[in-house]
Amino acid sequence: MTERTPETLKRRLFEFAKEFPFFKLIGFELVDVEPKWSKTQLTFRPDLRNPNGVMHGGVIATLIDASIAQAMLMTDEYQRVRDTKGSMTSVDLRVRYLRPVSDGKITCEARISHLGRRIGHASAVVTNDHGKDVAIGESIIMVDIKDA
Amino acid sequence: MTERTPETLKRRLFEFAKEFPFFKLIGFELVDVEPKWSKTQLTFRPDLRNPNGVMHGGVIATLIDASIAQAMLMTDEYQRVRDTKGSMTSVDLRVRYLRPVSDGKITCEARISHLGRRIGHASAVVTNDHGKDVAIGESIIMVDIKDA
Amino acid sequence: MTERTPETLKRRLFEFAKEFPFFKLIGFELVDVEPKWSKTQLTFRPDLRNPNGVMHGGVIATLIDASIAQAMLMTDEYQRVRDTKGSMTSVDLRVRYLRPVSDGKITCEARISHLGRRIGHASAVVTNDHGKDVAIGESIIMVDIKDA
Amino acid sequence: MTERTPETLKRRLFEFAKEFPFFKLIGFELVDVEPKWSKTQLTFRPDLRNPNGVMHGGVIATLIDASIAQAMLMTDEYQRVRDTKGSMTSVDLRVRYLRPVSDGKITCEARISHLGRRIGHASAVVTNDHGKDVAIGESIIMVDIKDA
Repeated sequence: MTERTPETLKRRLFEFAKEFPFFKLIGFELVDVEPKWSKTQLTFRPDLRNPNGVMHGGVIATLIDASIAQAMLMTDEYQRVRDTKGSMTSVDLRVRYLRPVSDGKITCEARISHLGRRIGHASAVVTNDHGKDVAIGESIIMVDIKDA
Repeated sequence: MTERTPETLKRRLFEFAKEFPFFKLIGFELVDVEPKWSKTQLTFRPDLRNPNGVMHGGVIATLIDASIAQAMLMTDEYQRVRDTKGSMTSVDLRVRYLRPVSDGKITCEARISHLGRRIGHASAVVTNDHGKDVAIGESIIMVDIKDA
Repeated sequence: MTERTPETLKRRLFEFAKEFPFFKLIGFELVDVEPKWSKTQLTFRPDLRNPNGVMHGGVIATLIDASIAQAMLMTDEYQRVRDTKGSMTSVDLRVRYLRPVSDGKITCEARISHLGRRIGHASAVVTNDHGKDVAIGESIIMVDIKDA
Repeated sequence: MTERTPETLKRRLFEFAKEFPFFKLIGFELVDVEPKWSKTQLTFRPDLRNPNGVMHGGVIATLIDASIAQAMLMTDEYQRVRDTKGSMTSVDLRVRYLRPVSDGKITCEARISHLGRRIGHASAVVTNDHGKDVAIGESIIMVDIKDA
């Protein structure tokens, strides 16, 4: 009940993100989250490099995918999905790489732009420490709310 | 010189993949590689899970991206890019998720379907231990061969 | 009833395609169709050119979209959708352009590669008169079968 | 010379668009254009319908593709491409369909979001008469400026 106030929900999302094994593995950090929006970060590390010496494209794809998932968590739709034991699944992820990343932190802002009864659309922009765009991402989410 | 025989090149690619830090971080394994083709694997681990308990979509995206890169390494085009100090960069990655992964190994077969003077197109299929398709991926690679 | 034999269905699809106004507008022709597969054609005409003098990308996108729709029509899933007054809608279309088209006929082969309870995935390849690939397309179809 | 003032260029683009055969075929209209931006329209007509009775997805894809091309025409980059007899080609088009169109006019706003030395990225939003989003599109443009 009281668990459902936005403040409580948000606090729990932060606690969860901090300890979640996969997020620790790649250094994913939740910076802020609202319904249909999130801001997240990831820091360049030598073991996140591809053989060319820059951050692996898969790491950037992971940051985008994880950020979009965070942007869903505070929506009413997601709460209804949880309540009805339905599901919300990313069925499509697309990343366009604009610039290589070779140091510093990258920041991802994700937005749910359209959220219908069956399908949601999200987008994300990743920027580097200098504010330059590093990658843009789009995702399609399938929503399955079970009727009572 | 002799380094350039396909057998020597292949052996070096295997040695490299085995020790490469990012590949070790997520458990990426090179199974086989030919010009324009690769077969790679990744094993389910608890710390590769997303909060729903199945393999994170970003890990599958990473497997696809890394596999497509491997499929480029034995091509003549890639060797020319290296010789001319040009570059070969993935500019676009798309992944469609078909089934969740919750155990076992997943296998990725990547193919370079079109390789032009300026742009290459690649595709990949990821299957699970039961031979079922888990994800399909497509990638666009920008080729920059410097003229002598 | 007898309407539902594959032969009758196929004959009706050909008759329909021949007279359908939009297909006549752009010159779309059905060559052959099977469940989950279709072959279609379109002939270069001066009024299908873009300002650069080659066939407009939108025409090629239309050929791919229409071909994938044809490939759905003979599937059992589509018949069930019709019977339950459900719907089958293309929610995503992607086209990658490989070569310009400046004369002759182009041929599109479309395939439904995955058809689930909720989502279908299709792909298509467009070739020119010389058998060279002109474009490749992918599509996501949302299936909505109403339960009785 | 004087041909190159923005006003003259814009006037010529309007004149061209009005008479261009393919634009007349499908009813494509240029509403406004600036460097890296365009606004265009298309009116629902019975012969633009798909077999389900709503506007064919290919027509919407065409509107998006044509609008993005218009948004390139007033850029300095495009003028340099013309001067050097280089080329600017759409290599990738993606359309996500959000709502069917069954009457009225649809309006497309296209933007070139990133324009580099080799690759440009564009996006477009199509809305209906009620201001609701009908489709969103993204495109990748390959730029080939020939060095003097």
